[in-house]
Amino acid sequence: MGYMFEFNLLAESEDTRARAGLIKTAHGNIETPIFMPVGTLASVKALSVEEVKDCGAQIILGNTYHLYLRPGCEVIDLFGGVHDFMRWDRPLLTDSGGYQFFSLAQLTKTTEEGVKFQSHIDGSRHLFTPEKAVEIQDCLGSDIMMCLDRCLEYPAEKPAAIESSEMSTRWAERCRKTWVEKTGQRNALFGIVQGGMYPDLRKISARQLSDMDFPGYSIGGLSVGEPKELMLEMADHTLPELPKHKPRYIMGVGTPEDIVDLVALGADMFDCVMPTRNARNGTLFTWSGTININNAKHVKDLAPIDPECTCYTCRNYTRAYLRHLYKSKELLAYRLNTIHNIHHYMELTTEIRKAVMENRYDEFRRAFYARRGKTCEPLG
Amino acid sequence: MGYMFEFNLLAESEDTRARAGLIKTAHGNIETPIFMPVGTLASVKALSVEEVKDCGAQIILGNTYHLYLRPGCEVIDLFGGVHDFMRWDRPLLTDSGGYQFFSLAQLTKTTEEGVKFQSHIDGSRHLFTPEKAVEIQDCLGSDIMMCLDRCLEYPAEKPAAIESSEMSTRWAERCRKTWVEKTGQRNALFGIVQGGMYPDLRKISARQLSDMDFPGYSIGGLSVGEPKELMLEMADHTLPELPKHKPRYIMGVGTPEDIVDLVALGADMFDCVMPTRNARNGTLFTWSGTININNAKHVKDLAPIDPECTCYTCRNYTRAYLRHLYKSKELLAYRLNTIHNIHHYMELTTEIRKAVMENRYDEFRRAFYARRGKTCEPLG
Repeated sequence: MGYMFEFNLLAESEDTRARAGLIKTAHGNIETPIFMPVGTLASVKALSVEEVKDCGAQIILGNTYHLYLRPGCEVIDLFGGVHDFMRWDRPLLTDSGGYQFFSLAQLTKTTEEGVKFQSHIDGSRHLFTPEKAVEIQDCLGSDIMMCLDRCLEYPAEKPAAIESSEMSTRWAERCRKTWVEKTGQRNALFGIVQGGMYPDLRKISARQLSDMDFPGYSIGGLSVGEPKELMLEMADHTLPELPKHKPRYIMGVGTPEDIVDLVALGADMFDCVMPTRNARNGTLFTWSGTININNAKHVKDLAPIDPECTCYTCRNYTRAYLRHLYKSKELLAYRLNTIHNIHHYMELTTEIRKAVMENRYDEFRRAFYARRGKTCEPLG
Repeated sequence: MGYMFEFNLLAESEDTRARAGLIKTAHGNIETPIFMPVGTLASVKALSVEEVKDCGAQIILGNTYHLYLRPGCEVIDLFGGVHDFMRWDRPLLTDSGGYQFFSLAQLTKTTEEGVKFQSHIDGSRHLFTPEKAVEIQDCLGSDIMMCLDRCLEYPAEKPAAIESSEMSTRWAERCRKTWVEKTGQRNALFGIVQGGMYPDLRKISARQLSDMDFPGYSIGGLSVGEPKELMLEMADHTLPELPKHKPRYIMGVGTPEDIVDLVALGADMFDCVMPTRNARNGTLFTWSGTININNAKHVKDLAPIDPECTCYTCRNYTRAYLRHLYKSKELLAYRLNTIHNIHHYMELTTEIRKAVMENRYDEFRRAFYARRGKTCEPLG
């Protein structure tokens, strides 16, 4: 394992499976459970890096597929990685591109060798192999890299799920080999559990990857259109199969409720475009639920988004001003909304972690749902 | 005159007509010559108020027509003015709406009474009179208000120019009356010189307004499509007709070259969307001219926009990163570009003022053109 990566499990909840830990990387520490804002193209949309930090972000995510196509490794190499390019000095995690081949690229063709695809920008043709996915992420200077995985549509028949899951495992072996032999392991590499919505396949995938001894483990292929209950069920079956002393990352999830529930099932890391994307659509998170700033009822509302919130936006601006900016399509609207939403997500994981450390996570989870006027369903 | 408005002439250039002064308002001082960034809808597009201040802005401009339609006076009134609404605590200048009726509103009908128009947003019908224009600006809490004027297309025949100029003068009387009788004169009101491209009409307009003794004077109807030489010729004929001990504001102008030349002719204040709008189009100002950040030659350019610039963008980011953001349509691109352009315009007027104070304005102007590789034409 890369000497610059370490995970210490600091606390375990007694009435749930929630955990609190500390990840150490070359670019600093990460307190888990953690939410990671998405900075697809070397920018967390609408924010400066100072604002991302002020919101409490400890690590952000970059997208390998996007950065490979634009600006490309040749440019990033001049900066020695994404960190200096965008002036971000805290940890960076990158995905492998697997999800974007599935959701965004055109005319994708997957073989045992890898994925042939056409750029969604200019139609140019490219080949991603497991080896190349790791090499590109190494060039990006990612602190936490992901194995190339094969994503699966939802719903999918079992034979297709078996094929994608087994191919992901074989690709994980090749990724690991490249990481060990070609990169000097300066950064960490996570294996990604697949298996569709089949608990037995999920367990097999989790065990096979665990045997390869990765620095950490991701669970991919969730939040792809399945009902929330099914997502939680898959996580419930998969998380206990992963090594206790390694971080567990649920990719692309989710709502505040999803995060609160998945932590209870033993997850440590999350990323999602929801706080940033929703901000740009006017949907703002509060501890009692979401509000839509576009709503006419806010036109003369002199209150901040959330009176309890301490973010820059809530300290300075009224809903009336934010609604005006949003209605007027002023660029500042997207920024102020994003600051609030990211701050809220970071405050959420901070409060989650505190509750786990103080061994009152079940109580925290009940109170979380009560404040939203929602039923707190039993888990697991 | 409103007791919270004062203009002190501090220096006059000996080899040009350039002047340096100090305006005092209830929200702070303004050092002239000054450039005023445009914040049409209670936001300088893409910037926070802290960034606007960090760029050196001493006063910003709001648009009465836009703010009247959205969010409307009823909302602004809840905040006691635009200052608290947008959290801007330095001086604010508002235009009267005259230019927007001319350029933006639909089905405009102008009579002696005022302007009937339909909103460009929802087609709703409105009437602006000179009295109402002042009352709305008073509600906006503007430190420097403008008289309602009648704008003129370019080119225009002399009879039309006479009509618009004379009507503007009669409206200025009505505005002044409203300001004196209805507003308590808590803020200043400027008269606006019109007269098309006819020097004799410009002189008459300037003299008539001067006789009304306004706290300051604007020159409107320039930069409406005429050649630059004609714009300078009109300013050259108009500026000397205005009272020496009052500030002189050229509305809607212009390029750095325009500002440098108009200061030489005796102008004190400027506003223009050019630095903000061009930033969003990728055109960035430097002391040696403009660059287009979209240009492929910047793809691996590790230099800042301007190596001499001390703005946040130039201190932190390369052209390569800025080009990547711009190509990727990242919202941060518009912000970083705007910070640079506004900072450049503010630095320009700071350097201009310093040169006037040190009585070397002609030399400054020659050096300014030399750095751009342009000929410095004689003026006046």
